[in-house]
Amino acid sequence: MYRIGIDLGGTNIAAGLVDGEMNLVRKKSIPTGAERAGEAIVADMATLCRDLCAEHGITMDDIKAIGIATPGVANLATGVVEYANNLHFIKFPLAELLGKELSFDNIKIANDANAAAWGEAVAGAAKGTTNSVMITLGTGVGGGIIIDNKIYTGFNCAGAELGHIVIEVDGVPCSCGRKGCWEAYSSATALIRMTEEKIEECKAEGRASLMLDAEKVSGRTACDCMRAGDAAAKEVYDKYIKYLASGLATIVNIFQPEVISLGGGVSNEGQSLIDDLLPIVRKEAYGGGVIDDLPELRIAKLGNDAGIIGAALLG
Amino acid sequence: MYRIGIDLGGTNIAAGLVDGEMNLVRKKSIPTGAERAGEAIVADMATLCRDLCAEHGITMDDIKAIGIATPGVANLATGVVEYANNLHFIKFPLAELLGKELSFDNIKIANDANAAAWGEAVAGAAKGTTNSVMITLGTGVGGGIIIDNKIYTGFNCAGAELGHIVIEVDGVPCSCGRKGCWEAYSSATALIRMTEEKIEECKAEGRASLMLDAEKVSGRTACDCMRAGDAAAKEVYDKYIKYLASGLATIVNIFQPEVISLGGGVSNEGQSLIDDLLPIVRKEAYGGGVIDDLPELRIAKLGNDAGIIGAALLG
Repeated sequence: MYRIGIDLGGTNIAAGLVDGEMNLVRKKSIPTGAERAGEAIVADMATLCRDLCAEHGITMDDIKAIGIATPGVANLATGVVEYANNLHFIKFPLAELLGKELSFDNIKIANDANAAAWGEAVAGAAKGTTNSVMITLGTGVGGGIIIDNKIYTGFNCAGAELGHIVIEVDGVPCSCGRKGCWEAYSSATALIRMTEEKIEECKAEGRASLMLDAEKVSGRTACDCMRAGDAAAKEVYDKYIKYLASGLATIVNIFQPEVISLGGGVSNEGQSLIDDLLPIVRKEAYGGGVIDDLPELRIAKLGNDAGIIGAALLG
Repeated sequence: MYRIGIDLGGTNIAAGLVDGEMNLVRKKSIPTGAERAGEAIVADMATLCRDLCAEHGITMDDIKAIGIATPGVANLATGVVEYANNLHFIKFPLAELLGKELSFDNIKIANDANAAAWGEAVAGAAKGTTNSVMITLGTGVGGGIIIDNKIYTGFNCAGAELGHIVIEVDGVPCSCGRKGCWEAYSSATALIRMTEEKIEECKAEGRASLMLDAEKVSGRTACDCMRAGDAAAKEVYDKYIKYLASGLATIVNIFQPEVISLGGGVSNEGQSLIDDLLPIVRKEAYGGGVIDDLPELRIAKLGNDAGIIGAALLG
């Protein structure tokens, strides 16, 4: 038997077949057409499921569960997307509608960041744990909380917005409307902003920096230039690490999870990122010198497939 | 049948009898003598339990459960206090030792802030909820998290240190060693510091303020003077409210609990405190205008007895 996981994004709908060993064995994606009515998007999701099966030489009868990772506020119990800004979903019965299209019962949904955290908890970096937290460092900072082997969303399904903990009152404006959110300091977007600010500073001061040669500034620019020995780039990187570590220590103090996994574009920096963060997180976490068992900080394992795999494993 | 709750503090050991309707019917306290060996403290706790029963005209046979609210890192599963700084407990088998003293089996322990949160969840301001958070605004800022009708402590029992989330990177030094913790802005201690700073400012500027007349500055000074129309006091109060609200909005974004209850000395300000906090918390919380069900902010109900009642209801 197989499972299907669908990662419903603002740009693409990616779906995959997951086998009994939790391996993603086939993947396919189509444009979302986010401006369309929800029903049209659901019809395309159904076609995607059927196509995946056909291409793999199986039928929907070989599928035991379907899961959907969706943006916005997802009600796990009812399968309704309460609200998703970029898809114009309001109280949209996503699971029920896809179920009707496919004549299929076992369909679960979760918020995309939560589904990714679930994927990492069941089949990825936090496999084998009971309590874990995943932080996604991408365009924003996403969060997923797994407690007692369940996704934690709060009573109204809107919790785990870990990017929107304020780490600097009256700080940098955040896309959410608050000021000083962790997201405004620790997303890839924030890293790019810090890099651009430093480049402007270097230009103004006539200071040499490899970052000035970058054709297009990305989240990697400061990291790459720092590794090539650039001092200004190291200042950017150190500042970024400082804020990221502060937020992670806060996550430790709140949750003391077995594992915190880091995903998203910035996590491609790999183990060196963990090595730079861990001493600061350990030092800042409450009771650091006293408690024997401390949460582990790991790079997420499932990459961009975490949402698909996590969704597939919801049911 | 009755239950006994013991609140083991650094100064006093308070214990109480709780009846079948979760009412505290008798209370007694003795000095802790925190400098003594743990075994001597446990012997006194046993005497306190027997005395409570004798004074109420019952025996230990009428007790169905005993619970202890202890400072430090409490392992709920084993009854061992992993570490409590102010009592010199290290891996101290508190439940087992008291059980031996009393020949009594059903003894549970919890961290004091967590026990208070449990008390409010079961018998206080958050009664009837499944997920709630309690914040204690006292000498420090304590936190307790109830998820799925269980105290959440993290895998190493050291979580829920909600006072030690950083809300201002590089901010005011905190007793924990970090800088900028919520506790350093929202405890009663912080309110007193802000009041003293403003008094000094007024003195330096020759500005009149009712706060200058205070014999001894307390957490109530700024609140009382503000209500009497003092402008400088209102500046202190507004600043305090701003930081407290920011942290509470962060708690909402993380947990979206049904209820957040506020305890500790500052919560004696009552409903007016909630009325001043709520608009800011609502505005700062993620997706405020979109989600129908929002967490309620309430003043805790059990006052100083929350630890005793919560402990009694652990077993």
